[in-house]
Amino acid sequence: MTDLVIRNATVVTCDPAGTVIADGGVAVRDGRIEQVAASVELEAAAAGARRLVDGKGHILMPGLINTHCHAGDSLFRGLVEDLPLEPWLQTVWKAEGAILNPETCYLGSVLGFAELLLSGVTTVMDMFWYPEETVRAARTVGMRVSTGGIFFDPPGVTGDNLKGRIAAAERFFEMFSDAEDVFPAVLPHGAYTVAPENLKTAKQLAERHGALFSTHAAETRAEQADVTGRYGRSVIRHLDDLGLLDERTLLAHCVHLDDEEIQILARTGATAVHNPVSNLKLASGFARVPEMLAAGVRVTLGTDGAISGNDLDMWMALRLAATLHKAVTGKADAVSTAQALAMMTSAGAEALGAAGRIGSLEAGKLADMILIDVKRPHAVPMFDPVTHLVYSTARSDVRHVFLSGEQVVRDGALTRHAIGQTIEAVERLKPRIAASIA
Amino acid sequence: MTDLVIRNATVVTCDPAGTVIADGGVAVRDGRIEQVAASVELEAAAAGARRLVDGKGHILMPGLINTHCHAGDSLFRGLVEDLPLEPWLQTVWKAEGAILNPETCYLGSVLGFAELLLSGVTTVMDMFWYPEETVRAARTVGMRVSTGGIFFDPPGVTGDNLKGRIAAAERFFEMFSDAEDVFPAVLPHGAYTVAPENLKTAKQLAERHGALFSTHAAETRAEQADVTGRYGRSVIRHLDDLGLLDERTLLAHCVHLDDEEIQILARTGATAVHNPVSNLKLASGFARVPEMLAAGVRVTLGTDGAISGNDLDMWMALRLAATLHKAVTGKADAVSTAQALAMMTSAGAEALGAAGRIGSLEAGKLADMILIDVKRPHAVPMFDPVTHLVYSTARSDVRHVFLSGEQVVRDGALTRHAIGQTIEAVERLKPRIAASIA
Ligand SMILES: [Zn+2]
Ligand SMILES: [Zn+2]
Repeated sequence: MTDLVIRNATVVTCDPAGTVIADGGVAVRDGRIEQVAASVELEAAAAGARRLVDGKGHILMPGLINTHCHAGDSLFRGLVEDLPLEPWLQTVWKAEGAILNPETCYLGSVLGFAELLLSGVTTVMDMFWYPEETVRAARTVGMRVSTGGIFFDPPGVTGDNLKGRIAAAERFFEMFSDAEDVFPAVLPHGAYTVAPENLKTAKQLAERHGALFSTHAAETRAEQADVTGRYGRSVIRHLDDLGLLDERTLLAHCVHLDDEEIQILARTGATAVHNPVSNLKLASGFARVPEMLAAGVRVTLGTDGAISGNDLDMWMALRLAATLHKAVTGKADAVSTAQALAMMTSAGAEALGAAGRIGSLEAGKLADMILIDVKRPHAVPMFDPVTHLVYSTARSDVRHVFLSGEQVVRDGALTRHAIGQTIEAVERLKPRIAASIA
Repeated sequence: MTDLVIRNATVVTCDPAGTVIADGGVAVRDGRIEQVAASVELEAAAAGARRLVDGKGHILMPGLINTHCHAGDSLFRGLVEDLPLEPWLQTVWKAEGAILNPETCYLGSVLGFAELLLSGVTTVMDMFWYPEETVRAARTVGMRVSTGGIFFDPPGVTGDNLKGRIAAAERFFEMFSDAEDVFPAVLPHGAYTVAPENLKTAKQLAERHGALFSTHAAETRAEQADVTGRYGRSVIRHLDDLGLLDERTLLAHCVHLDDEEIQILARTGATAVHNPVSNLKLASGFARVPEMLAAGVRVTLGTDGAISGNDLDMWMALRLAATLHKAVTGKADAVSTAQALAMMTSAGAEALGAAGRIGSLEAGKLADMILIDVKRPHAVPMFDPVTHLVYSTARSDVRHVFLSGEQVVRDGALTRHAIGQTIEAVERLKPRIAASIA
């Protein structure tokens, strides 16, 4: 029996053909999409469905995929301001060291994931200190998460040595390798904080478990200079020489790349995760997105953490991904709306090795879907729905979110979790956070 | 008797000292602010007030000022995409010519102003074809507007010749020179569409009426080349040589300026209106905002029209004004949060010659005020309210808007106008708009 039918919507499927259905919807059974079709073709399914949702006045599209985030850092939103990356990181790490433990990591992650889910993000790749808490937080609100063991040579928040980090990563695989809502990964922080042999250990661990591998790469000029000084080669060449780049690798930022480094990404199949909001705020610069796309590099989209944002707004990231590079190159067609939209849907799914399960509305995929109100004053008239999504949609237009067919956001509010509790807990913690860097 | 007291808010006054009151509010009488103070000091006023509003969990700040817009162009949102400015303008003008008349100008302006007011904009400088209709639209939703006669040498939408344009501008002054909600202006389109003698005529007309003067300037390289080719001098030098630049002049865009042109703006007191969303989307480039601020140029903020945006989101413009130039210059302190916030509050008021009436919460000024929800998942914790406004606030956080003390937005909805009617009328017009460029 069909569990859910959504009809009468403008359906932006994000499938490989870019199919848009002017008046259509989906039928869902057992958490998966069984049919994507025009509304009239959904009549049979609708007649027997447990639940009908009227999508009139809305765009129906797949849930968004955010491929770089540190949700727990939402606790430090706006705490450290107007510093370049390196001194900024030192201060942030001081605050993190003073405040973070499993319980506060969970709290901050619920806060960040609530924001993401309300904006339509149903899958997030998140790098943070206690990955089991990250999964717990994602399940609290109702979203999929890609995360796993962190590698970081200094003691960091957990104080683990390499052995401890390997053990934590292994423990994560044991706990979550079979979970449908978790895409296990190994996440070393970066080439300037993790030694070459430890990066290789991390990658081998990921490979043994068929897992993803993600790290920060080429975010700033200072990082490039640091890595080049230490290892005699730029960040991307360094990672490539270590054998870390392949289809299962996601590199956050990739701002400062030369032509050859772009070719390395194209050749290896590694993903470049574009984080434009963070790159502007931290003065990191402009990633060469049009050149990467032209070279065939897979480019996806991320928010980064709320301390470099200062929020987790994928729609603002999308707008910037589509427009920033027009101004940089002087070409009004530098990034197309279809390319930009793919960064947070189909390309995101491919990067997570999950193109068969998420990233588009197609029969057989998981029913991760969002409904976007398109009858607001800033949203009419709408001539082309893809143009509308890229250039006129705001996070507050997302009204309903479904994860495996379960409604996890209804009328702009979470259904699984009373967010007021979380906000109160954050407010109680706030004086301690402020004091941590005083 | 006090009409209204708002208490228990975080008050960001935007006054010259940058005063923030952690727990405060305002008292309003006869449409003006009579007191801005801590909540405890407002007890006497509150005791006798006709209406009390609890600002708990909100920031109270002055209504925003958008100094460059074409609200009526919201009718063409998303119609013409991915073209450089000149061919894009030709297509837009074709659509405008086919669709615009006084009634559709009113319709489009109500649509655009509704969007602006819901986001907290209480004053807008708007350049469009039938300025009386622009005023009528602003009054429909409840906001202040700066507009007036348009100068444009081709026939344009109205088909007027120079004589007709002068007569229309004079008629506007007759109708609105005494209105408290109108800041009369003369608005020639640009140096590439209005001949030098006609620009001078427009400025003289403005001066005779003590009015503002606004035009597009130095938006694109092509415009610079065009004007330099025709007149042997760059746009800003051309306008300066014609005697058009002074404290009453607002120049929209100012993207392509050399050091000497920045000095010309500083010397004359003319305002540069920064429109970052438009400049990115149309591939115009990056205005030299840090250099202009350092030189003492008054920089204000605008959305431009929804055909170059594709919406009218001052909060996105604010975020970009504060972050874009960090990435351009590589300096994380290139534009401060205080500088960015001033662009859409106090500096905007100065540019409109209205610093004594709007742009900050100070006793004696008009009670144009907004309340912003700061207890949402993307908004907590809040360590510094100005940082929060610049880096974490979205238009949907604006819950209540007051114009001269009258509540014109309540819980995110207009109070004067049923916007559903407008949206339906726009939907009915949509097929004709689509056909206009087919
Ligand atoms: Zn990051
Ligand atoms: Zn304009």
